[in-house]
Amino acid sequence: MTALETYPITVGNVTRHVPLVETLPGMRIPLIEFLGDTELVEEAARLLAERVPEEGDFLFSIECSPAPLVHRIAQMTGLPYTVARKRRRAYMEDPLIQEVPSLTLGASETLWLDRRWAERMINQRVVLVMDVVSSGGTMKALDRLVQRAGGTVVKRLAVFQQGKREFDGEVEHLYEIPIL
Amino acid sequence: MTALETYPITVGNVTRHVPLVETLPGMRIPLIEFLGDTELVEEAARLLAERVPEEGDFLFSIECSPAPLVHRIAQMTGLPYTVARKRRRAYMEDPLIQEVPSLTLGASETLWLDRRWAERMINQRVVLVMDVVSSGGTMKALDRLVQRAGGTVVKRLAVFQQGKREFDGEVEHLYEIPIL
Repeated sequence: MTALETYPITVGNVTRHVPLVETLPGMRIPLIEFLGDTELVEEAARLLAERVPEEGDFLFSIECSPAPLVHRIAQMTGLPYTVARKRRRAYMEDPLIQEVPSLTLGASETLWLDRRWAERMINQRVVLVMDVVSSGGTMKALDRLVQRAGGTVVKRLAVFQQGKREFDGEVEHLYEIPIL
Repeated sequence: MTALETYPITVGNVTRHVPLVETLPGMRIPLIEFLGDTELVEEAARLLAERVPEEGDFLFSIECSPAPLVHRIAQMTGLPYTVARKRRRAYMEDPLIQEVPSLTLGASETLWLDRRWAERMINQRVVLVMDVVSSGGTMKALDRLVQRAGGTVVKRLAVFQQGKREFDGEVEHLYEIPIL
């Protein structure tokens, strides 16, 4: 697997020439990494924070790559946040467990939300935050977790939409990136 | 499992009364969560950033709970950072793979560092950053990854030391928390 070619991605005033990687045979995507890129995260957080609606009172995302992003949006907006975990933690009590619907065979994923956090979402107007949305399956799972916790999703935000979304639910994204 | 009792933890000017949780039978620990607590992370980042040595030129941590913390320290110090991943990602090429030495039977863990990031650590003076250190096994694994990547660890920082550290290597921590 070689990755000599690059693809330009831009978020606000930040541009990165990222490698094209082949994640599935014959499918190349620009490799976008938010973890480890403080400038990219800062710019994305600034732009997404502007789109958090006035009525929103809780931010919800997923571990791990959007964690610094949602953390920064939380600081900028003053809203509380949490992230769904991808593994059960030893300290969790009676967690909400949510399968991520997947279009690809095999790699299914499960999200965990500790009861303590689920209880904080009761009657909250929740804004979902993702770095990259592709099929939309993860966003859908976050949606379900909020519903099950007793909250209401008032907006779904993402920095990038990669390829075509397959699950329903409107997502407001800043940029589109192709599957090549 | 009930968790009515709380334990006070303090980082700088931030105090939290966190639940005591029983992670192993008969062993109760204060549940410290950095994810979702912007104030705690901000205060910890400020205090740790002061301890990053002048000579340091790269910050290294682990996903996911210390991710916002190391992100903020990177912003405050102007240093680059990355985190070791706990799962192999599809885009990784020739990653470094490192087992976490463990004193407990069973739950062993593997860390992954993409070659692209490993190459950025060559000849770098690396500062390790953790939120909570217990046995020190994870810190040890980060140490090995830096060595194998061709970097040198110049300091190991942690917010909390929980219980007694069992692996060698000096760690500078801000606070101690007990196992009850």
